[in-house]
Amino acid sequence: MSLEEAIAVCTDLINFNLDEDTVPISSCRGRVAATNVIALGDVPPFDRSRVDGYAVTAQDFHDICSGSAADYEIIGVIAAGGSSVLKLRPGTAVRIMTGAPLPFGAAAVIKQEYAVTTGNKVQLTARLGQKTWCESCGSILKKGQEMNVAGEVLDESIMELLISSGVDKIRVFRRPRVCIISTGTELVMPGQPSSYGHIYNSNFSMLTAKLENEGCEVIQGRGDINDSLADISHEVQKAVNSADLVIITGGASEGDFDLVPAALIKTGCKILCGQLEMKPGTHTTIAAKGSVLVFNLPGNPGGGSILFEVIIAPVLRKLKGMRNFNRAWFNIRLSETYKNHNAVRLFCRGQLIDSINGLEAMPLKRAGRIKGIAPLVLDIAPGKGQKGDIAQALLV
Amino acid sequence: MSLEEAIAVCTDLINFNLDEDTVPISSCRGRVAATNVIALGDVPPFDRSRVDGYAVTAQDFHDICSGSAADYEIIGVIAAGGSSVLKLRPGTAVRIMTGAPLPFGAAAVIKQEYAVTTGNKVQLTARLGQKTWCESCGSILKKGQEMNVAGEVLDESIMELLISSGVDKIRVFRRPRVCIISTGTELVMPGQPSSYGHIYNSNFSMLTAKLENEGCEVIQGRGDINDSLADISHEVQKAVNSADLVIITGGASEGDFDLVPAALIKTGCKILCGQLEMKPGTHTTIAAKGSVLVFNLPGNPGGGSILFEVIIAPVLRKLKGMRNFNRAWFNIRLSETYKNHNAVRLFCRGQLIDSINGLEAMPLKRAGRIKGIAPLVLDIAPGKGQKGDIAQALLV
Repeated sequence: MSLEEAIAVCTDLINFNLDEDTVPISSCRGRVAATNVIALGDVPPFDRSRVDGYAVTAQDFHDICSGSAADYEIIGVIAAGGSSVLKLRPGTAVRIMTGAPLPFGAAAVIKQEYAVTTGNKVQLTARLGQKTWCESCGSILKKGQEMNVAGEVLDESIMELLISSGVDKIRVFRRPRVCIISTGTELVMPGQPSSYGHIYNSNFSMLTAKLENEGCEVIQGRGDINDSLADISHEVQKAVNSADLVIITGGASEGDFDLVPAALIKTGCKILCGQLEMKPGTHTTIAAKGSVLVFNLPGNPGGGSILFEVIIAPVLRKLKGMRNFNRAWFNIRLSETYKNHNAVRLFCRGQLIDSINGLEAMPLKRAGRIKGIAPLVLDIAPGKGQKGDIAQALLV
Repeated sequence: MSLEEAIAVCTDLINFNLDEDTVPISSCRGRVAATNVIALGDVPPFDRSRVDGYAVTAQDFHDICSGSAADYEIIGVIAAGGSSVLKLRPGTAVRIMTGAPLPFGAAAVIKQEYAVTTGNKVQLTARLGQKTWCESCGSILKKGQEMNVAGEVLDESIMELLISSGVDKIRVFRRPRVCIISTGTELVMPGQPSSYGHIYNSNFSMLTAKLENEGCEVIQGRGDINDSLADISHEVQKAVNSADLVIITGGASEGDFDLVPAALIKTGCKILCGQLEMKPGTHTTIAAKGSVLVFNLPGNPGGGSILFEVIIAPVLRKLKGMRNFNRAWFNIRLSETYKNHNAVRLFCRGQLIDSINGLEAMPLKRAGRIKGIAPLVLDIAPGKGQKGDIAQALLV
């Protein structure tokens, strides 16, 4: 099965939405909006000045721009946060601050840099076609207008708009609960004593980091399950009962002790995918128990990390309720050769770099730390991977 | 003062390190390592197989690669997590699983795809130059080796290496405490009733989001301080007493009620920068009270958000203890015209997009939501900004 087919099989199965919560606007960052939101007020909520200066009438603004500079009588001052009963008439001006409401009759504000005051008189100048520096009530958003945010991750720019329109709480989808478990008789958890033949489980920290980044609630199951069908089945059963999605690392290959696929069947899971046409991840098994998806990743954190980004992340995004769950892959030239000699697509880590040829991707053959602009995952087609070849890339 | 000069003035002042904490390795993500770390064990901790297959001696491996395929006697099985007293002799093979320790005398593993078993015999084939699929003890990291991580943000790849080497806790710098306050008589906090001339403070959610993203502890000071010198000075005094860095939004321009610079002087702060040669942010004031830096940003969240990314973020990274605190700016072609008619550099939001000409940056003239690969901040030189011109960009 191709990567794209596997994503489609999984996302098609997610034909439901998680429960909803109502959260204060100040703590909604990273959550997915469950509904569109109606603006409670106009943004801005009144006609206001965008600069510090002098408000004038439409006729006077026209005259000033035409070059007939004249003295205007200052009839008052309006500060931001102030309100005013001042009425502008031709020949008068009101001193006004950035963000302050315009006085009645105002059509434009002349910036203070173009004003010379003498007592209560001000001489104003402007060039033809000068901006009015006024912002109309509701010009950004109108009261009652529906903001099309359902299924979007609430980031700071959406939050800013919601807050400005008077919204102080919002309906969001519950965070997905994701259970992680690791199998392998060789595994020891960090902080525990280790003996010959054993290694520390470094998958939990990698997966926890990625899951938290995706806004999930992480349930850490057992990280040192022995290669025993009974033990694995027991932990899988517990995991599918407690989580919306389960990730199992290890036991995924075709060795004599790679028992996860058998444990999935024993637990009553339906196998959706037994093999992926890609490296790493050829032996990735994807299964489902009811609506709970189960992913069996390689025990090697390097491979597991790539599979998380390319297949689990879009599935999780659908589960979270995101309208656009597909990731933004883009084309990029390779700065160095990493030849794909396989018959299937090769995925690897990379770095976005700034070269004399523009932005390029440097493939990383080993887990190493190379300074670049940003980390990538690269998708190199069979036979491709020469320096200068185009690969597909994902910012991670 | 240029942006770069302002960053240098601030970072030169940070000639100290925050206190250190010791944290469990599982909860160090995003923190900055305070010291280098010594590997407690070899990675991998023993000679191991990278595949499922059959371990053989060096002589037999040579013969197999040379095409003289023969039958080998299977003298045992080693699973991952197992240990073994098996000794390979020429003519014998040991069934071995991925991650299992190699038996004594083994020099290579033949993948199971190239093995045909009959009873306790196995016929093995390989081509010339075949990899050995063995990984030597300590080939990734040696016990006692110093990992050069001081001043680095602990991400999942560093955590993986530390965990693999047996490290279970690490010294990190304390998170910087950043206090945010907003001035402006027009401001009302979300959830509070608003009246004519007032607007909701949307700076707190924007700054809190960005500061949490940088791993800071956020102290929310008052978000609706009146434009009064006494009130502002009082809140600034409280903020510099409680935080490592202070951000004040509003009151930064040259209007009659823009009192923050005066309040900074009244509070005994030293003004480091009174004006920046850039837009937005011309009226940015930077001051210091002892070692506490204070930034006065524009009240407009659009401008404040850009200034945070270009000037506060690198300063915060130095304060956090990061060795490389400068951000990774890169060159990119503009996909659309956004002409800079100013005499100073123009900064704006943008989106990284995949065009037929390769990766390009689309400048965003207003706060809008455009789907692209990733959000950017763009730095457009005076007179530049035509479609096809090169700008400087930052992934944010």
